[in-house]
Amino acid sequence: MRNLCMKVSYDGTDYCGFQTQPDGSTVQDALEKAIKLLTGEEVKIHASGRTDAGVHARGQVFNFITSSDIPVERWCIALNSRLPQDIIVWEAAEVPLEFHSRRSAKRKTYRYTINANQFPDLFQRRTQFHHPVKLDIAAMAEGLKHLIGTHDFTSFASRHSTKPSHIRTLYEAELVVDDSMCRPGTRDQGLIHIYVTGSGFLQHMVRIIVGTLLEIGKGRKKPGDMPAILEAKDRSKAGPTAVAKGLILWNVEYEAADENNLKSACDLPGFTVK
Amino acid sequence: MRNLCMKVSYDGTDYCGFQTQPDGSTVQDALEKAIKLLTGEEVKIHASGRTDAGVHARGQVFNFITSSDIPVERWCIALNSRLPQDIIVWEAAEVPLEFHSRRSAKRKTYRYTINANQFPDLFQRRTQFHHPVKLDIAAMAEGLKHLIGTHDFTSFASRHSTKPSHIRTLYEAELVVDDSMCRPGTRDQGLIHIYVTGSGFLQHMVRIIVGTLLEIGKGRKKPGDMPAILEAKDRSKAGPTAVAKGLILWNVEYEAADENNLKSACDLPGFTVK
Repeated sequence: MRNLCMKVSYDGTDYCGFQTQPDGSTVQDALEKAIKLLTGEEVKIHASGRTDAGVHARGQVFNFITSSDIPVERWCIALNSRLPQDIIVWEAAEVPLEFHSRRSAKRKTYRYTINANQFPDLFQRRTQFHHPVKLDIAAMAEGLKHLIGTHDFTSFASRHSTKPSHIRTLYEAELVVDDSMCRPGTRDQGLIHIYVTGSGFLQHMVRIIVGTLLEIGKGRKKPGDMPAILEAKDRSKAGPTAVAKGLILWNVEYEAADENNLKSACDLPGFTVK
Repeated sequence: MRNLCMKVSYDGTDYCGFQTQPDGSTVQDALEKAIKLLTGEEVKIHASGRTDAGVHARGQVFNFITSSDIPVERWCIALNSRLPQDIIVWEAAEVPLEFHSRRSAKRKTYRYTINANQFPDLFQRRTQFHHPVKLDIAAMAEGLKHLIGTHDFTSFASRHSTKPSHIRTLYEAELVVDDSMCRPGTRDQGLIHIYVTGSGFLQHMVRIIVGTLLEIGKGRKKPGDMPAILEAKDRSKAGPTAVAKGLILWNVEYEAADENNLKSACDLPGFTVK
């Protein structure tokens, strides 16, 4: 028996999320089906975490136990030829049997992209939330900084969350503006990329953070309101949940020993997702 | 009566080309329908040229005569709200009545993108031809240079071309490699963008140029074969027609006076199409 770990990108537009569900097709279903077509085995894959319907991944990680002796370097191409075009496996490694994509994960990074230019970017429309409204971007960046650290994120979690604890640690949070596509003399404000890296994320947490930052950007909340929103532990104090399409699971990091198996897990530039 | 000129981007994946056809939906149909929804008028739009099924546009230009008195600055948003998500009008100007998008055009630029990395770029899969085969890219660039100038491009035109003359002028032709996404230690060769700017292009001309460059890249033809291929005026001497999805009508240029109406036609950075 071998434990194989893989990195996968997917365009979540046409899926009901990552995890297998009673109704609707999921990324997990597609991956397990492709593995069965290749090996004949009915495997259950374990991912670093689920992603919601419409959310994308650049570097989702999953692992599974297999008795197949197909060499590890053949797996990506063999699976991709059996997968739909909106899912691509781009790294495969054999890892110790005790490795588990979710339990072994140390840090996860998500990216959310708001296109604050006047017109949507046609070719990136599946991965950007177009929001052509005047925003105070500096205030948004300031608000985001208040979330760094270890907090009870109940205010930023779905009311349907069933986790016993809502305490999570946000290690890094950064707002990056790409104004390279702004047309001079227009109201274009650029692409706003919000990167958050943490120990783990609650259901809808990144999207509620972004929805709250948008309230700050529009002047309805102030950056300094963030500590009180956290303190309240009340979902109604935060902003709305931003739409799924702007969210990408960017990267998952593991212990150095595991990273060595997933050779380029850290330094990999990944795919162009502007 | 006013003559309105507009710039439009479209994702050609789901269209049977630009121009209205007996069967299948086209970009022209969608634009004319949106104009009718807005103004009630049945107009016929004139584009800078047709694009084939599956070919995209960043800066296609079209114009039409209207009796509508809607202010010019309102048109983009008004049309976009009546267009499907894969078509975006992003510039509108009133131009002299004698302006015609095709007849007044001075230069057209197309871009073709080959993804020569090991894995496709998931989020750009609609606009890149994935070709993970070892290529002699320097030879391809050298072959391309032989096409600059005024030539009879019969060898690089569809056999179905009905144009009375196949003489065209290629003003500029450039091959640009973007290796920013290459993963170290892999066979990734980068994104190969081929830009061609000319007085006009014959049916399939850019795609046959790219198909011939791919033959050179694979060593089946030599860069120095290009003059003889031109000279032969025989379609069978050139390479195959590259797939449509990698091709984007990048930009159309007009006389300075017309460009002033289309304010930012030259300096506009346009949309992210990596």
